[in-house]
This record gives sequence, C-alpha cells and structure tokens, in this order.
Amino acid sequence: MPDIRHRVVISAPLENVYEAIATTEGISEWWTRDGARGDSSVGSKIEFYFGSPEPAAVMEVTELNSEGEVGWKCVAGAGEWVGTTLTFHLTRNGDETAVLFTHAGWREASEFMAHCSARWAYFLLSLKSLLETGKGTPFPNDLKF
Amino acid sequence: MPDIRHRVVISAPLENVYEAIATTEGISEWWTRDGARGDSSVGSKIEFYFGSPEPAAVMEVTELNSEGEVGWKCVAGAGEWVGTTLTFHLTRNGDETAVLFTHAGWREASEFMAHCSARWAYFLLSLKSLLETGKGTPFPNDLKF
Repeated sequence: MPDIRHRVVISAPLENVYEAIATTEGISEWWTRDGARGDSSVGSKIEFYFGSPEPAAVMEVTELNSEGEVGWKCVAGAGEWVGTTLTFHLTRNGDETAVLFTHAGWREASEFMAHCSARWAYFLLSLKSLLETGKGTPFPNDLKF
Repeated sequence: MPDIRHRVVISAPLENVYEAIATTEGISEWWTRDGARGDSSVGSKIEFYFGSPEPAAVMEVTELNSEGEVGWKCVAGAGEWVGTTLTFHLTRNGDETAVLFTHAGWREASEFMAHCSARWAYFLLSLKSLLETGKGTPFPNDLKF
C-alpha cells in the first residue's frame, strides 16, 4: 500500500518538538487552530477541525513515547483517511531534531493522497517554523493549494 | 516500488505553468538558480547544479507536450535518483492549473526519499509562488531543512 513519508530537520531540542506533536495545545499552533479537541493520552481520541462543525478527522492516539514517538490511527473523517496510520518518529541530530513522518495504509495512490502529501510537507514546515521562530502557519492561516 | 506524489493547485494559466517546468529558464526560477544547463528538448539532457562543480542530477527529457506533460529520467547524480523518473502532469481547473508531480521508481522507501519528498513539496510551492507572485524560492535562496 502506498505511503506518504517526509523527513524534516528542525533546529530545536527533541523535547520541544515532541511537546508540539504530542499535545493538543502544541498541534493547534502548527496544524489547526480551529480545534484539536480531546485527550491526547494513549487510547484516547483527538478530533481535528478545519472550519466545519464536524471534525475533518478523528484520531485515536496509539503511541506516545517522549523518547521520540507519536502514533495516531484515523478512526473517522475523510473516507480515504479512515484506517490509515500516522507516525512521527523523532531522532536527535546534534542540536537539531529530525522528524520522520509517515502517513501509511492508503488504499490507492489517489490524487487526494498526492494533495495530502504536499499538505503534510507544508504543515511539517509550519511545525519547523513554530519551533524555530515561535510562529507556525496552522489552519486557517495556512496557504491554500 | 515507492513513489513520491504531490498535487498542488496554482492560480495561473496552464501555458505559463508548462513554460516554467519545460524550459531551463523557467526551472532556474523555482528549483535551482545555480544552474539548469542543457537543451530542454526531448532526448536531450539537462544538468542541475546545487552549489557543487558537479551536477547533483542529470535528467534526460523523455516527454514534452504543451497540453500539459513534462517527463524526465534521471541518468546520473545522487545514487538513489539514478534510474528514477519524474513527471509533471498539468490539468486545467477553471482559471487554475493543477500540477500532479510524481517521482517514481525508488528502490526503497529510504530516509533520503522522505527528505526528497518534503523538498519536492517545498519546490512545488516555490513554483506556485513564482507563478502567482513573480518570485520563487530556488536554491540557493531556499529554506534548508
């Protein structure tokens, strides 16, 4: 099955990068300010909002390890996303942190998947910007494309 | 074999997007200003430079169709790139142009491939910026990550 995989290096300590990915407060500063609602502990669900009354995606948190692993499974939302898994694998790289992001389990290499691939790269650069400058570009302040 | 696939929508006529991808003059404004050297006709080769005396990649032009297709095959350069194929498929979307980019034929889903995936998304957004604002972010003015 086709996967989206991106690697981005961020000039920030691993602990800070982890905090921005593992908590709803962090996520709202780089992915969506419209709402990352729920409990971000393992086994709980987080609802992600992008301007609609219904969440665009609901993720079950499947892994949280402050050494550098965050895992989600999409349990509701955009049809092509349901059943896919998302992981953020962080590694120390001197004073920097490398983020290896994988969105796996797509049923087909659709145009929507290609759209999401470019969108994920954009939001990972938003995460980088947040950690390096204090300011990300989460929805609704994101570039539309 | 794993592929990189991105889709980006650009507010510009297809003809302009095609010109920016199909010509070395265009490419130098969004991918690398350090040098896209060679003849961009089918069967010819283009050398792409990124700050080194040797080209980082040499592409044979395999397809050029002003209806919206540009194809390259990597014939020399970074080891993992050699033998891979790159295509830009353009479609009209009202006043906009959708770019479906594919970098196919990778031997394995390596961390370098994940790095290149994020880099390609960044440079496709540079292409978008070039066409919408007149200014891209080609090497060496690109964000490093």
